[in-house]
Amino acid sequence: MNFKSGHLLGLEYVERDDIELILKTTKSFREILDRPIKKVPTLQGKTVVNLFFEPSTRTRISFELAEKRLSADSVNFSSSTSSVKKGETLLDTARNIEAMKIDMVVIRHQSPGAAHFLALNLDANIINAGDGAHEHPTQGLLDMVTIAEQHKTFEGLRVGIVGDIAHSRVALSNIHGLLKMGAKVTLCGPATLIPREIDKLGVEVSYNIDDLIQNVDVLNVLRIQLERQDSGFFPSLREYHNYFGITRERLEKATRPITIMHPGPINRGVEIASDVADSEHSVILNQVTNGVAVRMAILYLLAGGEHDTN
Amino acid sequence: MNFKSGHLLGLEYVERDDIELILKTTKSFREILDRPIKKVPTLQGKTVVNLFFEPSTRTRISFELAEKRLSADSVNFSSSTSSVKKGETLLDTARNIEAMKIDMVVIRHQSPGAAHFLALNLDANIINAGDGAHEHPTQGLLDMVTIAEQHKTFEGLRVGIVGDIAHSRVALSNIHGLLKMGAKVTLCGPATLIPREIDKLGVEVSYNIDDLIQNVDVLNVLRIQLERQDSGFFPSLREYHNYFGITRERLEKATRPITIMHPGPINRGVEIASDVADSEHSVILNQVTNGVAVRMAILYLLAGGEHDTN
Amino acid sequence: MNFKSGHLLGLEYVERDDIELILKTTKSFREILDRPIKKVPTLQGKTVVNLFFEPSTRTRISFELAEKRLSADSVNFSSSTSSVKKGETLLDTARNIEAMKIDMVVIRHQSPGAAHFLALNLDANIINAGDGAHEHPTQGLLDMVTIAEQHKTFEGLRVGIVGDIAHSRVALSNIHGLLKMGAKVTLCGPATLIPREIDKLGVEVSYNIDDLIQNVDVLNVLRIQLERQDSGFFPSLREYHNYFGITRERLEKATRPITIMHPGPINRGVEIASDVADSEHSVILNQVTNGVAVRMAILYLLAGGEHDTN
Repeated sequence: MNFKSGHLLGLEYVERDDIELILKTTKSFREILDRPIKKVPTLQGKTVVNLFFEPSTRTRISFELAEKRLSADSVNFSSSTSSVKKGETLLDTARNIEAMKIDMVVIRHQSPGAAHFLALNLDANIINAGDGAHEHPTQGLLDMVTIAEQHKTFEGLRVGIVGDIAHSRVALSNIHGLLKMGAKVTLCGPATLIPREIDKLGVEVSYNIDDLIQNVDVLNVLRIQLERQDSGFFPSLREYHNYFGITRERLEKATRPITIMHPGPINRGVEIASDVADSEHSVILNQVTNGVAVRMAILYLLAGGEHDTN
Repeated sequence: MNFKSGHLLGLEYVERDDIELILKTTKSFREILDRPIKKVPTLQGKTVVNLFFEPSTRTRISFELAEKRLSADSVNFSSSTSSVKKGETLLDTARNIEAMKIDMVVIRHQSPGAAHFLALNLDANIINAGDGAHEHPTQGLLDMVTIAEQHKTFEGLRVGIVGDIAHSRVALSNIHGLLKMGAKVTLCGPATLIPREIDKLGVEVSYNIDDLIQNVDVLNVLRIQLERQDSGFFPSLREYHNYFGITRERLEKATRPITIMHPGPINRGVEIASDVADSEHSVILNQVTNGVAVRMAILYLLAGGEHDTN
Repeated sequence: MNFKSGHLLGLEYVERDDIELILKTTKSFREILDRPIKKVPTLQGKTVVNLFFEPSTRTRISFELAEKRLSADSVNFSSSTSSVKKGETLLDTARNIEAMKIDMVVIRHQSPGAAHFLALNLDANIINAGDGAHEHPTQGLLDMVTIAEQHKTFEGLRVGIVGDIAHSRVALSNIHGLLKMGAKVTLCGPATLIPREIDKLGVEVSYNIDDLIQNVDVLNVLRIQLERQDSGFFPSLREYHNYFGITRERLEKATRPITIMHPGPINRGVEIASDVADSEHSVILNQVTNGVAVRMAILYLLAGGEHDTN
């Protein structure tokens, strides 16, 4: 079995079977990461280009490590020092890079649909590493892998996503992935940061974090981007923390422990209290580790790796 | 047979025999690029430093891919984050890097002669990746490889080079290489952008693009640097396009198809119309692919690779 | 035998036995650097992250080459394009990177103690590549390796360190290392640039370079940072050169040749005359070569490499 499209553009477009295959494949690669020698020859002689039009550290390094551990050759392109500044179109940049006979493109771009656009126009396998406020599918997948380590099944699992839903590609990828796997997703945050009609995707919406906490097994706490503070979406970071910050006090009111997730980087004391981020129920660093394994799995599967799904 | 100097500083200094050797060697490496595994162990254990004093994406990535596909270790140095800012001389920077026991230096520098200067002072093999408005020999070579794929012989082949000749290292490397191989080269562009007395190199000059189009087999269309617009060399980009832009209309007046080349990045609608860049006679992306193969060939030959020229 | 701590944080914390082990191990790696194939499989499958919070070229490239020649996978993180800008703490950045299952961290940071802080909080092996004005232990070690190539023993060897002692992590690492090996260290520079009570470390202080030159076997000439010129520590670069610059004239007054060292990058004509930097007694480029070998040795030893010290 394998990805039909040859690309990973968003979890909206991945079927449940394929998600299950990815989760299973990730598990094998996760084991490799605990070995003293974390390298396998799977992608030897293949070239992956990391095409980053937005600055990024953790996602870029995570992909780069995944590529190197699969023995691929990895080349980094960042728009800051590039011909993009010389007025070249995205398509020309991408076609040029493809003409250098590369096999896969990991793209992060500020425009929703950038990865789709490349997939339509290139022969290389395209992996979306974040396209504007649209999707960030490997993040959605690593979140699911991490949830699966903590909970037996997605069926009926209650996942809350808290924060700036409107500007979050992480939220959207989570929503698409989790719903397909049978989880129940509730979004929570200031009304200004939750898109109207998002319930049509099949999610619930809550504007009260304390209510939400009574009714979830997992809380995925999104990062509040500090630059939003002056944009009128909420009065101040302190206000945000008072109304939606995840604190130990709030969590203690839940009847059972809640798995705490965050895509990072964390603003300690804003969207999440420091002791919650470091608590025993926080799986934030597991998410990071699983991120490398998920990316190895995706690269492997897109390169044509076979894997028994039974 | 092999390069006598141990360096590739400019096509002015490479003999016809060596150009033929490079073209032949490139052909072998070009075939490797179509294999599923594009990697050969040729330069294993060798270190190449990419010393870029000017920003560059495509040339740097092309060299980096060439190095990795030959299994060399590749280190990137860019002047933006370097000790150059701390007032170090080029020679001290280069000597320091050489003292780290590297084998080859790929240098791009804003000063004409920078590569020569390193060749005089270092033991490492030096490859000029562009020195000011002087030469860009691997670009000249990849252009010749691409021409050779389209035309049986350079002898008598009529090549037009259009645009900002005065500021172009691409033009100069093309001129030196093509003339040595027996081609007839005609330069074309606004009088302000064609150096006086350049005909002493053995080229023709034309100031009328429509005349030129009647008399060439190949057109190498140079990029108009957008920042030149306000420098008084020509009235405006629109004027430039009207007088020298390569359009389908203009090309249709030629009696036979003309091979269209461009070193990139393209300004669509300025020096070249969008449909011409994407037309069946455009070999612009072939140039990019051949660029990687040419650089593999150069690295291989400078490292002492043997190749039968008969 | 092996490093007890699993880290290299500063030469203050390394025992004499371990310094001797490092010097011995470096010698083996130094020989590898003269081979045509400079690569060994020692760290295959290990991942090293170069975490640079300050711009650096030579140190970063030297570590990167050391890592690649040991066949480690090497990932570069620089704070300029990082989540550090998004307000993440150093600890969160480091924990995140460690969660990607990396084996070693090379850190350069503007704050003294940054490397210690990571060592306390991470499981990875930490190598300090410069922490503020505190220590730069691999520089201290490469200086000692270079001295050992020129002089039979450290016991009683007279080493002068000239320049901006107060702001120099190079000076402090040299002092700790050299004193442990039995050398006699004298500091020299303007009184404004020599910390009071530094003699408590066991060094001598001289404010007269001509006196010093009469009494040393080795001179380690520190870089004067050009930005200090306007800070009131000394009147001008010219004044500095007149009072403390190392010139051929000054050196000729010594009764025997002095080994000239400099950590680079050199300000020719400021702290050191051009002809002195290039003279037969200058070992400045040997330092650079030894830097790669020392870093290979440190990576090897921290990774658990065994080496007979007898």
